[in-house]
Amino acid sequence: MEEELLMIPGPVPVLPRILKAMSKPMIYHRGDEFGRLYEEIVEILKNIFQTRNDLFVLSGSGTCAMEAGIGNLIDNETRIVCIANGKFGERFVDIANRYNENKENVTTVNFAWGSPIELETVKEALECNPEVVTMAHNETSTGILNPAKEVGKLARKHDAVFVLDCVTSIGGDEVPVDEFGVDIAIVGSQKCLGAPPGLSAISISEKAWDLMQENPGRPYYMDLVAYKKSLEKKQTPYTPSLPLFFALREALEVIREESMERRIERHRMLSKAVRAAVTGLGLSLFPKLNEISDYSNTVTAISIPLASGITDEQIRGGMRKKGVMVAGGQEKLKGKIFRIATMGNITEKEVLRTIKALEQVLMENEFIDGEGRGMEEANRVFQNAWK
Amino acid sequence: MEEELLMIPGPVPVLPRILKAMSKPMIYHRGDEFGRLYEEIVEILKNIFQTRNDLFVLSGSGTCAMEAGIGNLIDNETRIVCIANGKFGERFVDIANRYNENKENVTTVNFAWGSPIELETVKEALECNPEVVTMAHNETSTGILNPAKEVGKLARKHDAVFVLDCVTSIGGDEVPVDEFGVDIAIVGSQKCLGAPPGLSAISISEKAWDLMQENPGRPYYMDLVAYKKSLEKKQTPYTPSLPLFFALREALEVIREESMERRIERHRMLSKAVRAAVTGLGLSLFPKLNEISDYSNTVTAISIPLASGITDEQIRGGMRKKGVMVAGGQEKLKGKIFRIATMGNITEKEVLRTIKALEQVLMENEFIDGEGRGMEEANRVFQNAWK
Repeated sequence: MEEELLMIPGPVPVLPRILKAMSKPMIYHRGDEFGRLYEEIVEILKNIFQTRNDLFVLSGSGTCAMEAGIGNLIDNETRIVCIANGKFGERFVDIANRYNENKENVTTVNFAWGSPIELETVKEALECNPEVVTMAHNETSTGILNPAKEVGKLARKHDAVFVLDCVTSIGGDEVPVDEFGVDIAIVGSQKCLGAPPGLSAISISEKAWDLMQENPGRPYYMDLVAYKKSLEKKQTPYTPSLPLFFALREALEVIREESMERRIERHRMLSKAVRAAVTGLGLSLFPKLNEISDYSNTVTAISIPLASGITDEQIRGGMRKKGVMVAGGQEKLKGKIFRIATMGNITEKEVLRTIKALEQVLMENEFIDGEGRGMEEANRVFQNAWK
Repeated sequence: MEEELLMIPGPVPVLPRILKAMSKPMIYHRGDEFGRLYEEIVEILKNIFQTRNDLFVLSGSGTCAMEAGIGNLIDNETRIVCIANGKFGERFVDIANRYNENKENVTTVNFAWGSPIELETVKEALECNPEVVTMAHNETSTGILNPAKEVGKLARKHDAVFVLDCVTSIGGDEVPVDEFGVDIAIVGSQKCLGAPPGLSAISISEKAWDLMQENPGRPYYMDLVAYKKSLEKKQTPYTPSLPLFFALREALEVIREESMERRIERHRMLSKAVRAAVTGLGLSLFPKLNEISDYSNTVTAISIPLASGITDEQIRGGMRKKGVMVAGGQEKLKGKIFRIATMGNITEKEVLRTIKALEQVLMENEFIDGEGRGMEEANRVFQNAWK
């Protein structure tokens, strides 16, 4: 039987050579071999982040790094503005409320899930001169790419530390962290980097360090000041998840071989093909865009045409029976959208397998009359890409 | 060339079949397959912990679980007594100070590193009627086994939540969590369980839940209330480190095949052999014991006979050249002791290889006149064990 194809926004399928890297015997985590490994990973990730800031790898998921970013930075006195138009933008609000008892210091700029971020509203919110501004770059829950560059400019204007969740953008899309003015950027291992889940990376600017150094309420396991001190010895403060470091190193080697430029191009092409296919099949993309937002190049959110009578279970359950796992909507979007991720080392082949399964399911449920239109549209995108 | 033998207190050498388990392709972390895997791991660990309490697996090291235990439990108003006679007992103090701004609420009962815990001193400290009492069971930094049962009784008498760091005892020594009255027990994956680093497990009693439920300052990534809610769906709140779960499941299968009884017996025999060998070679064990403490069965701390002129570098550096890595002293014990761990799936063979390397180094540095005495003592222990 063909292996189940994961087209969810992480964990993504992991190449056999990356899986194999984890069967290496354990090494001393305070020794030279680990030191070299960690140093290499940090240097390569700095290139991928396009940053000169400090960067660390945490033994925990993207959420662990999100908490590290906020928890080290803020206390009860910090004014923080969280811009959100989906689940992950809102996660920063939840985390901020754990580290700041004064609710009036935590301002949320909420847009409807799937709606674009309006810069005028953000501008008004920043009038309170916050010390910290947060946003999700690629909002995985709704398939929208938020305006990092524009919000980064506003944050800089107010001299605020800009924290950007790039968990599902870095490695698959263009994210020039320093150019965008991002003080804290975060990525997860199991998304566009194509590694297994369990690691995250976080970059920290000088401006962010200024707020962190004197904060006595920093978390412990993810204490970034301890991470900084340990990195000088090429170590992590606590025992690192060694096999995941071995795997991440190999995943970064795969990226080097492909080159980031081609990798981003591939992510763009694959998501474009998915969008062309699903709209060709008569489905609608979920996100509403404005001039400063875009469709995500790593996950495509599609509205379930409920009016036609077709259900989430029919679409996703049907596709799963055909060996393809796509993601559902989260929380308030459950049953209303489904999401196809094109992250990591996914190729045209997997996208075509996914579209084929979708076509079959739509036909079985009488949403379309005949197969082929989605595949045709996807193939057209692929052919144009190679011209 | 023979592979370097890790005789350090984690990461321990991992059996090939456990390493191999990590090359399994990724699965959906919210699906049935992961649910079964997680449920099985939790049930087996509850048996190993000998507890009926809730138990969770965190995607982070033992320190992550230590922070989870304290951070969910305490706030600025909580009176906490931390009993410490080594680095890991003291770690609870550091963590408590991050979650409790009122330093007068955090009482430390400090004994010299390597000295035993005196129950009379603990009794006096508990007169303040703390809500929480913490201790390290197996103090990895000094090779001493602390009196969990006795301190557990005192904590219960004062109706305090008893938090016990069992990071390097559970899986290698007898730790009946419920019988000892331990409300929060913690273990790491890369120690006596014989799995790779990156996971930890924590058990929580009803009494501990009472303090946690209403604590608004709980950490986020390691929010145990969120873990409890997610476990009902056989899920973790955030993406788990899948390959490490695959490995832990296999490591638990290895434990099942051996049986916990034989596993503990083996740990006892191996550490006894190490103690017999090193004392036979004229070295001294570092810990000072009283009637309620004992030598650790999972890590042996040995004083470096500095008066004889031999150094840490000569002993550990020399052994490493022979392919055997043992641990040094930490912080104030650096250069004064070295530590030989006998954790996880280590056998007589590895212990003998270690003792042989130690003998050679001691001879090369003219601490002893001839080889063989250490091996002889170790072998005598092994032979008696099989009688």
